[in-house]
Amino acid sequence: MKKVILSLSGGLDSSTLLAYLLNVGYEVETIGFCYGSKHNIYENQKAALIADLYNVSFDLIDLSEVFSGITSSLMLTGDDIPEGHYTDKSMESTVVPSRNIIFISILSSIAWTREAGLIAVGIHQGDHAIYPDCRVEFFQDMNDAIVSGTGGKVGLLAPFVDGNKADIVKKGLELKVPYQLTRTCYKRQEIACGVCGSCVERLSAFHDNDAIDPIEYESETAEDASGSLIPASNRRRR
Amino acid sequence: MKKVILSLSGGLDSSTLLAYLLNVGYEVETIGFCYGSKHNIYENQKAALIADLYNVSFDLIDLSEVFSGITSSLMLTGDDIPEGHYTDKSMESTVVPSRNIIFISILSSIAWTREAGLIAVGIHQGDHAIYPDCRVEFFQDMNDAIVSGTGGKVGLLAPFVDGNKADIVKKGLELKVPYQLTRTCYKRQEIACGVCGSCVERLSAFHDNDAIDPIEYESETAEDASGSLIPASNRRRR
Repeated sequence: MKKVILSLSGGLDSSTLLAYLLNVGYEVETIGFCYGSKHNIYENQKAALIADLYNVSFDLIDLSEVFSGITSSLMLTGDDIPEGHYTDKSMESTVVPSRNIIFISILSSIAWTREAGLIAVGIHQGDHAIYPDCRVEFFQDMNDAIVSGTGGKVGLLAPFVDGNKADIVKKGLELKVPYQLTRTCYKRQEIACGVCGSCVERLSAFHDNDAIDPIEYESETAEDASGSLIPASNRRRR
Repeated sequence: MKKVILSLSGGLDSSTLLAYLLNVGYEVETIGFCYGSKHNIYENQKAALIADLYNVSFDLIDLSEVFSGITSSLMLTGDDIPEGHYTDKSMESTVVPSRNIIFISILSSIAWTREAGLIAVGIHQGDHAIYPDCRVEFFQDMNDAIVSGTGGKVGLLAPFVDGNKADIVKKGLELKVPYQLTRTCYKRQEIACGVCGSCVERLSAFHDNDAIDPIEYESETAEDASGSLIPASNRRRR
């Protein structure tokens, strides 16, 4: 059984990837990062619950100092999270420079140390518009760097990289991923807002699968890429 | 004037690279890392002195938690540092998994944030025998990953990557690098031991340039790759 170190954020993508990896027979150990984003405390709580549910290890690594100089609206120190669809220019303010590069680098060190031959990340091309370190080209280049930098000891898995979030939800529904436990919203509030780019993308992904997102939302509706209104949830809070 | 973020360890390679970059006209800002190695406290003190001497900024980033699980003789938590030439099998115990991958990843985030188009590291092929993340192939792959992962905002400079430590000392002597301020020894002691792989490589590099290493050594002689004795210093302490 091959061992994989998975970056588990508590979001929809990495939670689905955990179920996917276990389903195809990998032994999985998961890692979360504290890096100072507004939603970080909520997503790490969810990640711990999900890891527990799947009976895999979950270790948290504190990178708040590493990211302390970053100017991004995603961070506690940044401006307000913008609202609207992901391709909007305003969402560029949520970019955290080199976040995936740093996470993958640290995972490669952990994998090498724990004698796991692979690391896995839930990046996908749906993020490509504003996040360069979610694109297929980056994944290929980063895999090459990890392989050569570890002397061939570690490689990178990103099974969702050429799909989008709707493809991930489709796979996760098949695998019965407990989406009620996942956290996607970028805002610093416990209940998902339903209007930030991250919530809109999540809601669209469920909508595209004719499925209901089981989490609670603050807003009743959200606007998708085409400007159509989509229902935010079947269990609205207010 | 193009801005470069340089990884400055206080060792011979990165100190020479600082002088080299300034000499060819770059604006340089330097970063050091606390990562829990035995010699880390000494090298960071030297790095701060060297940055001050060259009038460039120097920021320290604490990565001790990130590297806390590492088993390497280089670390405070590890076994004794082995002695002898770098190609010896025993020196493999000094490898810190993915150290340069992690350092370069973090530098790319800092460079992006500070609007510097380049990051620079003093890696060289003299280290290739045991350190995969010092090889030319790794440098090329990591550059590709940084370029694609930052959307073309940051690239990687490693001007010494295809040379060895003797080439670096030759360049540094021309540039009058204050080698008396640099720190190379891997052991947890203020005075360089003269017998660990890192000291032996440094002494050989000066010897190959018919030059005297200006730092103090504990041991009078060291053995080079061919088994010949080389004088450890002109200013022996004991």
